[in-house]
Amino acid sequence: MAKPEAWRLDASSYPIHHTVNTRFQDLDPNGHLNNVAFAALFEHGRVRLNLDIRDWRDRPADERTMVVVVTINYLGEGHYPDDVIVCTGTGKIGGSSWEIVQALFQNGRCIATCDSVIAARKGDGPNPHSPEIREALARIEAKPAI
Amino acid sequence: MAKPEAWRLDASSYPIHHTVNTRFQDLDPNGHLNNVAFAALFEHGRVRLNLDIRDWRDRPADERTMVVVVTINYLGEGHYPDDVIVCTGTGKIGGSSWEIVQALFQNGRCIATCDSVIAARKGDGPNPHSPEIREALARIEAKPAI
Amino acid sequence: MAKPEAWRLDASSYPIHHTVNTRFQDLDPNGHLNNVAFAALFEHGRVRLNLDIRDWRDRPADERTMVVVVTINYLGEGHYPDDVIVCTGTGKIGGSSWEIVQALFQNGRCIATCDSVIAARKGDGPNPHSPEIREALARIEAKPAI
Amino acid sequence: MAKPEAWRLDASSYPIHHTVNTRFQDLDPNGHLNNVAFAALFEHGRVRLNLDIRDWRDRPADERTMVVVVTINYLGEGHYPDDVIVCTGTGKIGGSSWEIVQALFQNGRCIATCDSVIAARKGDGPNPHSPEIREALARIEAKPAI
Repeated sequence: MAKPEAWRLDASSYPIHHTVNTRFQDLDPNGHLNNVAFAALFEHGRVRLNLDIRDWRDRPADERTMVVVVTINYLGEGHYPDDVIVCTGTGKIGGSSWEIVQALFQNGRCIATCDSVIAARKGDGPNPHSPEIREALARIEAKPAI
Repeated sequence: MAKPEAWRLDASSYPIHHTVNTRFQDLDPNGHLNNVAFAALFEHGRVRLNLDIRDWRDRPADERTMVVVVTINYLGEGHYPDDVIVCTGTGKIGGSSWEIVQALFQNGRCIATCDSVIAARKGDGPNPHSPEIREALARIEAKPAI
Repeated sequence: MAKPEAWRLDASSYPIHHTVNTRFQDLDPNGHLNNVAFAALFEHGRVRLNLDIRDWRDRPADERTMVVVVTINYLGEGHYPDDVIVCTGTGKIGGSSWEIVQALFQNGRCIATCDSVIAARKGDGPNPHSPEIREALARIEAKPAI
Repeated sequence: MAKPEAWRLDASSYPIHHTVNTRFQDLDPNGHLNNVAFAALFEHGRVRLNLDIRDWRDRPADERTMVVVVTINYLGEGHYPDDVIVCTGTGKIGGSSWEIVQALFQNGRCIATCDSVIAARKGDGPNPHSPEIREALARIEAKPAI
């Protein structure tokens, strides 16, 4: 598994930033934020992005989104009770899927990156993006800030 | 179990307020914040209070605090992704223990109260409060705002 | 808050026993099972009891159950990765509510008890127990084993 | 991200099997086991493997293990309250790191795979495997069953 590229460690590469509290429950016996807590924090950013594109609570019953794959690179330790910033944007957009790329910052350090693939499903098959959805996803692409 | 008194549902009764994000992970199959998520949110407020009194990470190895009992009254449903406010203060202060009383608010509604008893231990016995600790605990008492 | 009575610390007082794994995620910085993890373990026993009485997934959309109050008495430390046994039964049965009483055991020691009140709701009002539900709840009453 | 190879979906490819309960708390608003709950279940298997190799609680204070990267492929929905089987083994073994490969089964279906890289650290540098640790890791390699 290759290390994340440099632009992925720069908060300004991501269009969406959520400041999120850490919780005592996120700590593990080492006194650091647990790996699974990182996963929950990234999920929060992912769900918020998806909510902005389309509220899952307004969706027809036969439509849903599925997480296909999630990769988290752990780059540094996280501490309690300092807040973290979950930075989120889209990556490659497929016919009925999209990539979400993220990074987690605490006290100015990037402590993890996350790459996910989400698939839109309708019944038992894929749910191809409408032009509106595709455009909304493209508008929040993560990319080197320069 | 009696209902909480009216002053307990008033945020201004509590000296300490923490605004905390809700997380997707807090939701249960009903689409509401799960009961156990309430417990984690109250714990966050409790730990933050205890950290302000005395940082557990600076404590001698033979001293610790233990949660003795926690009661949560559930008064309303909690929603995602709205923030909650965890309001916290002390109740009765014993020789080596203290009560923490709390309430959880979301969008102006009190959705739960929580009463906990914490005990300070040293080795296998109680760890009586120093005058400084007792005073620090008393300074953040929760009480009717008038 | 009074200490639990002696019969509550005896596993044979409870008709329903679930052996449950502990998870690394249940640990806190002290290396013990976290207080909130206890709450999740008790919830598991409570939900399993409620599922046996009536599967919430088969319920009419306007019916639901609500947790009204939960009290947990913490009596000892919990360890990883040893299993725990969640012991569960009913307490007082009201017109549309019921008490669930529980205890948590690990390696033969009772490490916590839990008392909850659950309310059955239909629309915005109470959902009185049918004779069948009342009988099913009474059949799994927790009581001193003699 | 490529799909997992066929042998990775076969429980008999993995030398270590843990049967783990699902919890109500693992469910999300869709009524399925949440993605983050999968991460916690895989972590449990990973920690158990690492405990078997070397108990982290007996380790010198300047040694630790770090999770470097975790990839989870989600292949199917998980249900409550059915148990899952977390299947675990080692993959490539580096000079001071090792891969852990896993799969999650429920009711005979493989619902996810997980690939992690763990690094052993001593102070600020790598902690090269002793011959004993290397041999212990090699003994529990995951591989096609025939």
